[in-house]
Amino acid sequence: MADPATDLALLRDRLGVIADLEQALALLGWDQHTYMPAGGVEARGRQAATLAGLRHEHLVDDRLHDLLGRLEGRDLVGDDAALVREARREVDRARRVPADLVARLALQGARGQAVWAQARASNDFAAFAPELRTAVALQRERAAALGDGDPYDVLHDLYERGSSAERVARVFAPLRTEIRALLDAVRGSDRAPDLDLLARPVPEAAQEAFAVEMVRAFGFDFARGRLDRTVHPFAQRIGPGDVRITTRYRSDRFAMALFGTFHESGHGMYEQNLPAAEARSPLGDSVSLGVHESQSRLWENLVGRGRPFWTWAFPRLRAHAPGVFDDVDVERFVFAINAVRPSLIRVEADELTYHLHVMLRFELEQRLISGALDVADLPAAWAEESATLGLPTPPDDREGCLQDVHWSAGMFGYFPTYTLGTLLSVQLWEALGRAVPDRDAHLAAGEFAPVFDWLVANVHDQGSRLAPEELVERATGAPLSADAYLRYARAKYGALYGFA
Amino acid sequence: MADPATDLALLRDRLGVIADLEQALALLGWDQHTYMPAGGVEARGRQAATLAGLRHEHLVDDRLHDLLGRLEGRDLVGDDAALVREARREVDRARRVPADLVARLALQGARGQAVWAQARASNDFAAFAPELRTAVALQRERAAALGDGDPYDVLHDLYERGSSAERVARVFAPLRTEIRALLDAVRGSDRAPDLDLLARPVPEAAQEAFAVEMVRAFGFDFARGRLDRTVHPFAQRIGPGDVRITTRYRSDRFAMALFGTFHESGHGMYEQNLPAAEARSPLGDSVSLGVHESQSRLWENLVGRGRPFWTWAFPRLRAHAPGVFDDVDVERFVFAINAVRPSLIRVEADELTYHLHVMLRFELEQRLISGALDVADLPAAWAEESATLGLPTPPDDREGCLQDVHWSAGMFGYFPTYTLGTLLSVQLWEALGRAVPDRDAHLAAGEFAPVFDWLVANVHDQGSRLAPEELVERATGAPLSADAYLRYARAKYGALYGFA
Repeated sequence: MADPATDLALLRDRLGVIADLEQALALLGWDQHTYMPAGGVEARGRQAATLAGLRHEHLVDDRLHDLLGRLEGRDLVGDDAALVREARREVDRARRVPADLVARLALQGARGQAVWAQARASNDFAAFAPELRTAVALQRERAAALGDGDPYDVLHDLYERGSSAERVARVFAPLRTEIRALLDAVRGSDRAPDLDLLARPVPEAAQEAFAVEMVRAFGFDFARGRLDRTVHPFAQRIGPGDVRITTRYRSDRFAMALFGTFHESGHGMYEQNLPAAEARSPLGDSVSLGVHESQSRLWENLVGRGRPFWTWAFPRLRAHAPGVFDDVDVERFVFAINAVRPSLIRVEADELTYHLHVMLRFELEQRLISGALDVADLPAAWAEESATLGLPTPPDDREGCLQDVHWSAGMFGYFPTYTLGTLLSVQLWEALGRAVPDRDAHLAAGEFAPVFDWLVANVHDQGSRLAPEELVERATGAPLSADAYLRYARAKYGALYGFA
Repeated sequence: MADPATDLALLRDRLGVIADLEQALALLGWDQHTYMPAGGVEARGRQAATLAGLRHEHLVDDRLHDLLGRLEGRDLVGDDAALVREARREVDRARRVPADLVARLALQGARGQAVWAQARASNDFAAFAPELRTAVALQRERAAALGDGDPYDVLHDLYERGSSAERVARVFAPLRTEIRALLDAVRGSDRAPDLDLLARPVPEAAQEAFAVEMVRAFGFDFARGRLDRTVHPFAQRIGPGDVRITTRYRSDRFAMALFGTFHESGHGMYEQNLPAAEARSPLGDSVSLGVHESQSRLWENLVGRGRPFWTWAFPRLRAHAPGVFDDVDVERFVFAINAVRPSLIRVEADELTYHLHVMLRFELEQRLISGALDVADLPAAWAEESATLGLPTPPDDREGCLQDVHWSAGMFGYFPTYTLGTLLSVQLWEALGRAVPDRDAHLAAGEFAPVFDWLVANVHDQGSRLAPEELVERATGAPLSADAYLRYARAKYGALYGFA
């Protein structure tokens, strides 16, 4: 029998090849969304398909399976045990889905997004319905191949390991009630934010320069990263020292690029500070979408929409955009960027009603996957559920069930991670406040290292060594719940709208 | 025995995977030289090594070898025969070099360039010499593995198939004599170009806008390509609809970006117009470095430094850079951009003395590979040969034998392709002049389609179907020689310097 050290080295070599392919695929994707000329799209699809195919071949290779089997027979501990566990998780997942289903999923994902984009542009749900029906059927087939649990749970676990619909529902329940109460209080308030502030034109170059100055101050490292322009903002790690974030600008909506860049910088800092020594192994990967989202939301909202931060930042914004905010004080500015108003579009929603959009999708996607909701009835169910949640009824499907790309690409069970991550961001923020009692004074002085360092130590540097729930409990002392978020929301909106 | 059509389809699939890997590698390289942050360099090396390793594995796969063997037993004709021939050429080349030598070559190439860059910066030939010695030894070993011909010829054939040192020497001989005669005539002329013109500051944005307008007019397609900034300009095909060129700017040397961009656009248009149906097979590749260089030189020099072109372009340049050339007429401008002066640095040389730099390197690299010249004696040999050729003696090695990257990266037999390509560009230009008698009138009117279309039909769209010599003879009616170039040089410099 081979020495476990030899086998572990072999394992790391095999996983390294897979990681290199994933990193090359990440570059193909980043490039496609930033600089690739239009004429490159067809070849890019083939390049990505070939690399993804090679990745899959390497993942299901019997020699890797056997290697893991041998190592599972040894008494490994610590990172070695975690490495074998994480690799097994990925290998099993890949081996369980037959090659022809992998191909059909890839095909549907690509075609689905194209059909969806067309259907959304022409507000034509009927054109999209057959594609969505195929996506649902394929995802059910995928869930059955992956495991014998509830299909929705199996799919949700792809994005948030260890989570389940039951857990999500449990966490969401108090949130739902309390958001309603808070919205009533906001509606009853005699204070109103000056929303016109947000429409004041700020030149794109000034927005960019200010955003870069801010995220550099946060801790995003431009020697190991970039900020570029794109249509749909994202963060992408190409390699351990190469993490790229993107944003978009509109001169009459400066808040879009600003909070978008803060958000992506949170994703980016997480990726930049994953354990570098594990850059070619699954231990060096982010642990779940919820944890990822907690990092983006923390910088976007807890830091970036907070009064302490703007004490320091507002004069700097004014310097970048001379004349634009001369008549505005920081209180008025902070109220405007924290305005609450139920609206139609998820990605434009405020920090509080955002969760209603997630609950709507969580509810409907469960029914789609279980078969309780037929695809043809989705628009009606969307309207009905929106009303129940207190969201406006969409005037058409473009602003209703056609607004998000996720389902068209076959992603079901993904949406809840947005809210789970936001809740976690506040739970981390409370823990951070206990560890760094003068946190807000630091922020008001433009000192972000105490926040950054705590996140690196408690979240980023963990990589995938711990299960997400374990990471949360170690970092915050409690399992994930809505408690911290609700304390935060009550205090914040109470102060802003005067009902505290 | 399998149907040849089935085998051909299988062959195309296998070659397609290899092409996709090459295209992904091309993107990794382009990105490294344009947008990759500094922190990405280590991971990028691993990503590229893994993809190159997978490419090699696929190329030496016995199933591909056997498939080719079966197809070679059939009576294939046309593109099918060419495809099998080209694939065999690549497969044999890959199979002949043992894996450990491939690894040592890759290692030396990467390390050699790093050591060279350091040594050049500190003008320290002694620090570079051991690395160069290793490079020479490895290239000899590589030549021995590849074939049983003369080692230099084997290496030169990697870049210019079918060529040899004897052929290069034969083509170079009259060139050498005639350049000397032309230089004497230039020295004896009482006319002198106004070189100060070339140092007039032109804002980088104006240079870029003008260069983009020009290469778009030439036929470079920005829907299937890009122009970006880099330190060392290059052209790179990522895919059939995705060809990227790069340049660099200095406000006080506008000619650098201008002719650099024209040059790269020539490479780029060749890559954009290779046969699209063969985008994933070797038939869709460029046929040789010499042919490639003929395309860049044609647009840079024959079009881009010509009087007809500037009749149309000079008012446009003035419009992009208001005030800069108000006191200059087109004659004075064209004389300045065609000034002849023996100088130290190859990449800054004029169109005529450029060849002396190539001859110097061709002479010395043959001696290095044969063993007639010891690495330690290179600086002295460089000075001696420079004097013989009529080039200035370098004051130090930085401006002497350390100026080029090629040898450090293990590229021997590459330099002659620069001159072969330039000679070919003029031979094509003469043929084009016979096919399009009013060529110069078109250029003076800013109409480039007649030139572009002829090049696409006679060069680009051929891909690698023909051997380079065959392509040259079909397109120009004669084998490659210096004749056309010498007619052109005598006429051009005679007119400019008044000794015609």
